[in-house]
Amino acid sequence: MDIRTSYKNNNYTISVANDILENKLKTWTEQYEDVFYLIDENVYALYKDTKLKNIHSPIVVTGGESFKYASPLMNTIEKLLELGIKRNSLIVVIGGGATGDAGGMIASLVLRGVDYIHIPTTLLAHDSAIGGKTAINSLHGKNLIGSFYRPKAVIYDLDFLYSLSNDEKLSGFGEVFKHALLLSEIEVESLMKVTKDSIEIKDLTEFIISGIKLKMDIVTKDEHESGSRKFLNLGHTLGHAIEYQYKIPHGQAVMLGILFSLYLSNEIYQQDFDLVKYYNFMAHHGYPVQLLQNMNEDDMIKLMQQDKKNHQGDLITFILFSDTNTLTLTDIKKSDLYDYLRRIKETL
Amino acid sequence: MDIRTSYKNNNYTISVANDILENKLKTWTEQYEDVFYLIDENVYALYKDTKLKNIHSPIVVTGGESFKYASPLMNTIEKLLELGIKRNSLIVVIGGGATGDAGGMIASLVLRGVDYIHIPTTLLAHDSAIGGKTAINSLHGKNLIGSFYRPKAVIYDLDFLYSLSNDEKLSGFGEVFKHALLLSEIEVESLMKVTKDSIEIKDLTEFIISGIKLKMDIVTKDEHESGSRKFLNLGHTLGHAIEYQYKIPHGQAVMLGILFSLYLSNEIYQQDFDLVKYYNFMAHHGYPVQLLQNMNEDDMIKLMQQDKKNHQGDLITFILFSDTNTLTLTDIKKSDLYDYLRRIKETL
Repeated sequence: MDIRTSYKNNNYTISVANDILENKLKTWTEQYEDVFYLIDENVYALYKDTKLKNIHSPIVVTGGESFKYASPLMNTIEKLLELGIKRNSLIVVIGGGATGDAGGMIASLVLRGVDYIHIPTTLLAHDSAIGGKTAINSLHGKNLIGSFYRPKAVIYDLDFLYSLSNDEKLSGFGEVFKHALLLSEIEVESLMKVTKDSIEIKDLTEFIISGIKLKMDIVTKDEHESGSRKFLNLGHTLGHAIEYQYKIPHGQAVMLGILFSLYLSNEIYQQDFDLVKYYNFMAHHGYPVQLLQNMNEDDMIKLMQQDKKNHQGDLITFILFSDTNTLTLTDIKKSDLYDYLRRIKETL
Repeated sequence: MDIRTSYKNNNYTISVANDILENKLKTWTEQYEDVFYLIDENVYALYKDTKLKNIHSPIVVTGGESFKYASPLMNTIEKLLELGIKRNSLIVVIGGGATGDAGGMIASLVLRGVDYIHIPTTLLAHDSAIGGKTAINSLHGKNLIGSFYRPKAVIYDLDFLYSLSNDEKLSGFGEVFKHALLLSEIEVESLMKVTKDSIEIKDLTEFIISGIKLKMDIVTKDEHESGSRKFLNLGHTLGHAIEYQYKIPHGQAVMLGILFSLYLSNEIYQQDFDLVKYYNFMAHHGYPVQLLQNMNEDDMIKLMQQDKKNHQGDLITFILFSDTNTLTLTDIKKSDLYDYLRRIKETL
């Protein structure tokens, strides 16, 4: 499946299917005199003799989130310059969301921007690879330093997903679930049915594609997140706080955050989300739902206030369903939020 | 004089005049809830009790070129985040070209981009403040890491120029001279007449303005330097090599580079630039013209080959006059270039 963006200019294609890497990559690298590969060390170790065997002399970068800091970013830029990268070179970034975020930022900065393509290798990256945001982490929070810079292509070869650990799979599935929920009740019911017993990569293709399409539709209309793109942060307000405090994978924390958002939607907008059904689904698959019972209200509120997207004096912003299929940005006072956080513990 | 850009969108105004800082700055800062000032330490020391007396708690940054490195860049970004900068904040950058280059890059990266305005304080910055290029230096060369990011406004208060050292004035005048030469023979004759005895800031206003207009006209048509923007590099091929090797100010090196370009235009395109006239003008004002006699050909060629803009196998690219008012990108073979570098020593 090829999905094409529809910006005014600088459009690109996201190809999603099994076993497409070799062919798709070839059509790109043939167009450039010099190609530089940035590959996550863990991905390279797993695939250097198979799917990545034709890639010679890659720059192997620190695995996962540890790459998203100023020092590895700058070292990699210097390395590319040392190797003689030019304005008409191509950078190929192979790895998960973190590798893509920092790799995209590197491409945007070296020589004031060279072309790059992204080859995501995780389920979570079906989310982060769409939308043209690049970033590294600051001492003061995640993704606070970055740019908007679009790749020339995204090649999403689903073969890579079969080597994911269960933790990574659960994390990526959190965003698949979020996209389904944003799309429609039917979509999320359908997803939960397919994954009722266990979450199998082979069953997810259609949901990955509809998730990518949904996200692309939203980010095309609102690239710089001044309006509807904010709705993609469903579950992220509490999610980021849980992620930070308990050091659990992003998408797993988002999953818990989604449950809290549904709870708030019921309380504030009289929706009737079946919390027990969602809770049991998450618990069955091994999401750390007990954190919702164990979290400390004060810690959570303090962390939510530090998040750049929620900051508005004494108010903290949540994405809620104010009606079926209608999302709303809702500001909640700290004191009310404290009560909600306390009461969800009794509800679950 | 207010000069407005004419991009398709995100246009801004460059205001050029004496004593405009206070009023112009006020109309901008009033529009933002939070304003953060980044000020070159030398500029702040000179003006903190006069022109900058109303600015409280600025972030005072390392002076000049030493600010254009990864470490002070990242430290300043972290400082802004620590102080609670938001997406709707404004950054005001006060300093010369280097402060503007790194300050603009900081604004482009913090929270993926916040608004900024630039207040240039040097003559040289009449060049670098126009065109929306931001940059820091790499271990492998100048300006190799950066972005394209436009300010919301440039406020060029010419009062600042009166405190420039003679070295800085000569450097800035190099780019004023270049712009005049690019504009027309009449313009450069007129400039040389006005500055015949000495270069006085008060006499330069009209040339600064016509230089800014020329540069803006070119960069508007070719923001990302795929075509005519390259002509603004007149004198920079050898200029950058001299600057790097002999550690002299940018615009002074460019001035020597211009002389070499005029020499090459005479040799290759049978132009009749009066080299002796230009040489004497430069020597009279204290430009280090003796470097053109003393430079080592091999060193120069090696440095020119490392420059990202000249790189094309065995060829090195120069901007030359192929006819009066007609500029041409000309590739010169290393062996021929060696001869030209040797022979200009005999000619001067």
